[in-house]
Amino acid sequence: MNGKENGGGSSRMTEDARITIAEFERIVEESLPLAAAWKIETRALHHGRATLRLGFDAGFLRPGGTISGPIQMGLADVAIFAALLGAIGPVPGAVTSNLSINFLRRPKPSPLIAEARMLKVGRKLAVGEVELYSEGDPEMLAHVVATYAIPAA
Amino acid sequence: MNGKENGGGSSRMTEDARITIAEFERIVEESLPLAAAWKIETRALHHGRATLRLGFDAGFLRPGGTISGPIQMGLADVAIFAALLGAIGPVPGAVTSNLSINFLRRPKPSPLIAEARMLKVGRKLAVGEVELYSEGDPEMLAHVVATYAIPAA
Amino acid sequence: MNGKENGGGSSRMTEDARITIAEFERIVEESLPLAAAWKIETRALHHGRATLRLGFDAGFLRPGGTISGPIQMGLADVAIFAALLGAIGPVPGAVTSNLSINFLRRPKPSPLIAEARMLKVGRKLAVGEVELYSEGDPEMLAHVVATYAIPAA
Amino acid sequence: MNGKENGGGSSRMTEDARITIAEFERIVEESLPLAAAWKIETRALHHGRATLRLGFDAGFLRPGGTISGPIQMGLADVAIFAALLGAIGPVPGAVTSNLSINFLRRPKPSPLIAEARMLKVGRKLAVGEVELYSEGDPEMLAHVVATYAIPAA
Repeated sequence: MNGKENGGGSSRMTEDARITIAEFERIVEESLPLAAAWKIETRALHHGRATLRLGFDAGFLRPGGTISGPIQMGLADVAIFAALLGAIGPVPGAVTSNLSINFLRRPKPSPLIAEARMLKVGRKLAVGEVELYSEGDPEMLAHVVATYAIPAA
Repeated sequence: MNGKENGGGSSRMTEDARITIAEFERIVEESLPLAAAWKIETRALHHGRATLRLGFDAGFLRPGGTISGPIQMGLADVAIFAALLGAIGPVPGAVTSNLSINFLRRPKPSPLIAEARMLKVGRKLAVGEVELYSEGDPEMLAHVVATYAIPAA
Repeated sequence: MNGKENGGGSSRMTEDARITIAEFERIVEESLPLAAAWKIETRALHHGRATLRLGFDAGFLRPGGTISGPIQMGLADVAIFAALLGAIGPVPGAVTSNLSINFLRRPKPSPLIAEARMLKVGRKLAVGEVELYSEGDPEMLAHVVATYAIPAA
Repeated sequence: MNGKENGGGSSRMTEDARITIAEFERIVEESLPLAAAWKIETRALHHGRATLRLGFDAGFLRPGGTISGPIQMGLADVAIFAALLGAIGPVPGAVTSNLSINFLRRPKPSPLIAEARMLKVGRKLAVGEVELYSEGDPEMLAHVVATYAIPAA
């Protein structure tokens, strides 16, 4: 899925991040209290890419031991936000305009890993995708595509 | 949008609900602890339609006084689940396979109303849509379409 | 699904159309040759609402007598474009940024009716939904939500 | 986006295709006449992965020289169908139940390449994603996620 026939991804995606993990985590604490309360951890942050981890918490469970949908959606949303700010820096006011999630497998009661990358970062709109995994398990749990509206500079 | 030219909605949608509000709320308590913790209230429950209300809680807020995305997605998901069980009864094991949300306006710090209706209830798949409002305000906040996979009987 | 508890839809949606059917059909002919080739007919055009009809053509068929997906997607896209221009007038350069379709039932080999309405018309983004029917049949065939990016004035 | 932290993609995806390109192209000719008319070419077909090419045709153009949305959606749909049949063989009756496309950049007037991979192939539902490119250009034009309903064996 990396467009090898076309010579690989955009060169933009290999540039350095425009925000540090510490700066991003401060923004989450200030502007996304729900995500901060879940103790989402930013593992890696690049220009248009990010890896986040959500530690396991029994309160996230659905019966049967699976992690509830809104938790997965919330994690994915923050992961794309991280990848976006990695690309544009700490621009205030970017908001999710659309999020579409496909639930593929039931998560186990273990930490979640979110791998996000931006597909496009335009002046007004940015689109990113996220893959969710149970930590240490190669089977994708959920796939998310989301659009962010970027306020005029 | 109600297909007037085509003679109105499906007659199936005017039948009685196959589950009572009390039965539905018991299922939510047992199987969706997150939704139960949020104290989502089922206001109306018909065959393929439901109205739910989420009381305002300061913990749901994002800075700027708006209600966070995962809360809106979670409420919408439960509302479609209600409309679905209204159509098929207390069938165990139905799970969301896809959810797509468009955030249209920032919610005010007030209770949310979710109006759900099923677009199709098949043997294996059901599709529903939800409109979210701030209570007492006619402007739609968010629009959700979700698909549920129904286990084989 | 019309938010009765909340007092009905936005008042904006009851205003007159900002474009005539003739003007809209001229724009389609100039800018959407595929849609023009299919002979899509605009039946009604209001501020943020539109009804379009696609006459039956054997070339649209899939085996089994059903109408192929891209035809349904194309019709829905044009219907939202009509509803949008009904709301904002003949603004050049609006383009679809996202389109999500749920196929609910197999269309019969008969004309299709698309009923579109805008859910939001903002300065930069507009979101609309479309219901597709076989002419004269109340069962919804497909449901579409699409986002249009509106160029800066 | 390849889940490196989780040890790579599913091993299932590296198995051989359960259908040949010739068999797949025969199915397209018989069951998707629109796609056959467009002369879509299957370049590669593996278990859960496929690469398709759509030659440039002036009839696909929108003014401004860009390729119209329904053409892109149709190509993506066929590409996921190819990747799915690569995984399950020539199972009759699989149909698209949901397709969501994000248009990222305007295509140039040149051939299109679609790179599809399945994210999940279950007994009843399969989910795949597609990336669209202009041939020879690494910038993604559009990203599609689609769900197929698989008939009971």
